[in-house]
Amino acid sequence: MPSKLNDDAITRHLADLPGWSLEQGKLRLEHRFADFSAAFAFMTRVALIAESMNHHPEWFNVWATVRIDLSTHDAGGITELDIELAQKINQLLNDSPASA
Amino acid sequence: MPSKLNDDAITRHLADLPGWSLEQGKLRLEHRFADFSAAFAFMTRVALIAESMNHHPEWFNVWATVRIDLSTHDAGGITELDIELAQKINQLLNDSPASA
Amino acid sequence: MPSKLNDDAITRHLADLPGWSLEQGKLRLEHRFADFSAAFAFMTRVALIAESMNHHPEWFNVWATVRIDLSTHDAGGITELDIELAQKINQLLNDSPASA
Amino acid sequence: MPSKLNDDAITRHLADLPGWSLEQGKLRLEHRFADFSAAFAFMTRVALIAESMNHHPEWFNVWATVRIDLSTHDAGGITELDIELAQKINQLLNDSPASA
Repeated sequence: MPSKLNDDAITRHLADLPGWSLEQGKLRLEHRFADFSAAFAFMTRVALIAESMNHHPEWFNVWATVRIDLSTHDAGGITELDIELAQKINQLLNDSPASA
Repeated sequence: MPSKLNDDAITRHLADLPGWSLEQGKLRLEHRFADFSAAFAFMTRVALIAESMNHHPEWFNVWATVRIDLSTHDAGGITELDIELAQKINQLLNDSPASA
Repeated sequence: MPSKLNDDAITRHLADLPGWSLEQGKLRLEHRFADFSAAFAFMTRVALIAESMNHHPEWFNVWATVRIDLSTHDAGGITELDIELAQKINQLLNDSPASA
Repeated sequence: MPSKLNDDAITRHLADLPGWSLEQGKLRLEHRFADFSAAFAFMTRVALIAESMNHHPEWFNVWATVRIDLSTHDAGGITELDIELAQKINQLLNDSPASA
């Protein structure tokens, strides 16, 4: 189990995670796609990553918008697992221009 | 465009929609599945229905839990479209016992 | 139910459907994506379209490759429904550069 | 990399894998679901498993039917990875009664 990162470490990681911010103790990304289909295809790819890592997001979708909140429940905060998942999600977004 | 249902009509419909309640002007269902895989498979089936109806949910997932809120943005409330989508979602849940 | 297109009509449509060919009486596309995740995300978007049209592909996937065969079973050949589905699939591919 | 199983080992494993047979050097399952939605939801769950194992099926779908062929390309035949994936797929089918 990775341990909880302190605020300095989180701030340093956020500098390399465009689009993400710290909200209520979680890493948050909100992204708007072209339509529901593009949003749900992105969610499917995130689901594949999350299941492979056995580390799952807390996420919300309405139409073309997806909001993701990452934290590690068992560690009581943000850990390296969340950083890794956020990095993989950003790679998907860089691959996929189907965003508004 | 269907028109907004009044409270009496919503209450009558809710009597036939086990699991659903009225929360902040929206139809809400929260359901816990066996695991993330079962939850996401259910979401995929709801996505197919929503896209076919061109009427999409506002929804949230964390691990095995899915929470769905239905309303019709353009009508400013709950309409027959939401009732129809809720009925189809309940049919899925009846088909699929992979819930906890 | 749309009627079966003759060979001339199919040939004319294929001129506007890059990537598609006529194989054993069906419209065929084979596309290679960057990886399985990109391929399956594409399949998810095609599934949303197919379910909305109530017209489904015959398709095959292995790793990053997806092969799609379209025909209209009830018409005994290729119809306008297949042309429409192929056009929508090509729009997805144009939107999504995540291909090799 | 797991090594190729010999025919005796494959036969023994098949005894515990109802629905699967040996076809052209691959483990094959064909299953018919209630409709396309149920079939594609099953495929989504298999995709999550396959990506987690980094071991992917060769598969075909038309409407409610899914056909899966498993082998390990790099080993030139069927390996323990295929057996493990087949077992996990059968667990899904046992969980999910949405089949015809």
